[in-house]
Amino acid sequence: SRSIRLAVIPGDGIGPEVVAQGLKVLGSVLPSDVKLETREYDLGARRWHATGETLPDAELASLKQHDAILLGAIGDPTVPSGVLERGLLLKLRFAFDHYVNLRPSKLFPHTVSPLAGRPEIDFVVVREGTEGPYTGNGGSLRTGTPAEVATEVSVNTAYGVERVVRDAYERAQARPRRKLTLVHKNNVLVHAGHLWRRVFDRVGREYPEVTTDYLHVDAATIFFVTQPERFDVIVTDNLFGDILTDLAAAVTGGIGLAASGNINPTGAFPSMFEPVHGSAPDIAGTGKADPTATVLSVALLLRHLGYEAEAARVETAVAEDITGRGSVVRTTDQVGDALVSRVLASVQTG
Amino acid sequence: SRSIRLAVIPGDGIGPEVVAQGLKVLGSVLPSDVKLETREYDLGARRWHATGETLPDAELASLKQHDAILLGAIGDPTVPSGVLERGLLLKLRFAFDHYVNLRPSKLFPHTVSPLAGRPEIDFVVVREGTEGPYTGNGGSLRTGTPAEVATEVSVNTAYGVERVVRDAYERAQARPRRKLTLVHKNNVLVHAGHLWRRVFDRVGREYPEVTTDYLHVDAATIFFVTQPERFDVIVTDNLFGDILTDLAAAVTGGIGLAASGNINPTGAFPSMFEPVHGSAPDIAGTGKADPTATVLSVALLLRHLGYEAEAARVETAVAEDITGRGSVVRTTDQVGDALVSRVLASVQTG
Ligand SMILES: CC(C)[C@H](C(=O)O)[C@@H](O)C(=O)O
Ligand SMILES: CC(C)[C@H](C(=O)O)[C@@H](O)C(=O)O
Repeated sequence: SRSIRLAVIPGDGIGPEVVAQGLKVLGSVLPSDVKLETREYDLGARRWHATGETLPDAELASLKQHDAILLGAIGDPTVPSGVLERGLLLKLRFAFDHYVNLRPSKLFPHTVSPLAGRPEIDFVVVREGTEGPYTGNGGSLRTGTPAEVATEVSVNTAYGVERVVRDAYERAQARPRRKLTLVHKNNVLVHAGHLWRRVFDRVGREYPEVTTDYLHVDAATIFFVTQPERFDVIVTDNLFGDILTDLAAAVTGGIGLAASGNINPTGAFPSMFEPVHGSAPDIAGTGKADPTATVLSVALLLRHLGYEAEAARVETAVAEDITGRGSVVRTTDQVGDALVSRVLASVQTG
Repeated sequence: SRSIRLAVIPGDGIGPEVVAQGLKVLGSVLPSDVKLETREYDLGARRWHATGETLPDAELASLKQHDAILLGAIGDPTVPSGVLERGLLLKLRFAFDHYVNLRPSKLFPHTVSPLAGRPEIDFVVVREGTEGPYTGNGGSLRTGTPAEVATEVSVNTAYGVERVVRDAYERAQARPRRKLTLVHKNNVLVHAGHLWRRVFDRVGREYPEVTTDYLHVDAATIFFVTQPERFDVIVTDNLFGDILTDLAAAVTGGIGLAASGNINPTGAFPSMFEPVHGSAPDIAGTGKADPTATVLSVALLLRHLGYEAEAARVETAVAEDITGRGSVVRTTDQVGDALVSRVLASVQTG
């Protein structure tokens, strides 16, 4: 019999609320012969305030013993900016070598987009997850004085760029439009940018069926709002990917729908799935959080673990739920229940 | 009698075409007692192909003898990416210490915005122009091999951050809404980000009437499309400012309207005014380029040199022209002529 050992990090703010719904949907869609074992980890602001710890080694070792991780959201205004992000969230991405940060963007029918004219949007950003300006390289000198100097170093390697670029080509090759766009800023960041471009062009020769394109990151933001339909698969650096995927979420109906997977495609470490949104402390506890992004992240998790049919059922349930949304405001729990109902209905008719 | 010594760098692609219109409008708006002396500099792709030079020292010294610089656009696909950008455009910004890169964004009446619902947009981005990831710091090792490492170093100093932050507070203080938003990514780029935040908070104590706000750059892109009316003055780093101002141009009716000033507020060096758009080689020579961004850059130039009434007349002419635009497609030259007519009419009635 099959099993999934799932580590759960509910985290801060609305994290626990949306994760609860994600787990509900996961439980409802899994075949009855699959045993789901979950283990919850108390990590985030509360833990840091209580013990000063962000991610102790023992916890990291224990997390590693899982097939996947589901994470809600990390961050709280009571914790200095960067402490939990660097000490927990990014530490996980780096420790588990999540070099593919996968972020699909799709404008569902009936979703309200801030864009006039409702373009067709269906692309996926493959964001590099272990290099670039996120490495934590840099420092500050004479901190707090008028003579302070602070640096941030973007580190890029042929090894790191090639593996994510190759992953992106594979994904582009598997999609109907077969188009891959590299986004960087190689007219200014010439060292990193030229490395990316050279690797992109070289690996591209192995994928003659994939049409390629290059855009500077500033120009890319323009096309995200004026011509998002031009994108199919986008591959980009860690920081540009961070910026572009929030923008992508905005134009496809909001950060409440944006899912992500921090993936280690080799399987050497557990991959981690999380909504793109943050912990939204302002609405925590109000029942206003939309769990859809977490549920869509669960779909990515299912696909990653080989449960393709189940992933598709969750995505269909979400698409139907969004299409059927009226003007009635529902709580986090009610959205979760509605999704569970649709998932269960799909097995009866399917 | 007064005079303006203006250096003109038409540059590449549509650069010369839009600059010609900018100069036409400038000539039409200046009071008759102001003597305008222009000197044109042949810099850009043509020069580089002919001589291998981007910006020789003699030219730099000669440019320095001017009150201001008007630049069209730099960059051409026949020149390796980065050569002209780093060797000419950025070299000018750094050599002339253009630490305030001023980029206003306004949604004019009747402009077609890609945003549904037409929010009110009227903000200005104060982009730092001499530090951050633009310093050219970094390099690559074992270039072209599978063991390549490439770095880009973002350099930030208290000196550099404070002067631009102070400039932004001054601008916010002088505007009706008096609101200043710092955009950075201080939860990841903790060294640079915390420096920016500390300086922002400290200088802010001298401006108690200015309301302040902080946003991570990824969140800022969301608000640019969902709630652009929330912004008044934004201060940010060189790279984030580059990305955000292209996005700002997109949501306010296009890059054809986005003006910028590379300003040295001390007056030690000439400031430089240029449209935000690039050289658009695909439409060069077709008469399709919209010179409006260049004309609005001329307005910023006039204001910088103390010709406030003239700057306002140019801006009013542009606003009227945009409002009066029908469906008839006009050439670059026709738009320039229409703006000149409006400018001249405004002096007769004014
Ligand atoms: C919270 C933060 C560290 C994180 C990032 O910058 O990657 C977030 O914005 C994201 O996109 O997942
Ligand atoms: C051409 C390029 C170097 C430049 C920049 O990145 O600053 C441009 O994008 C701009 O915004 O003026």
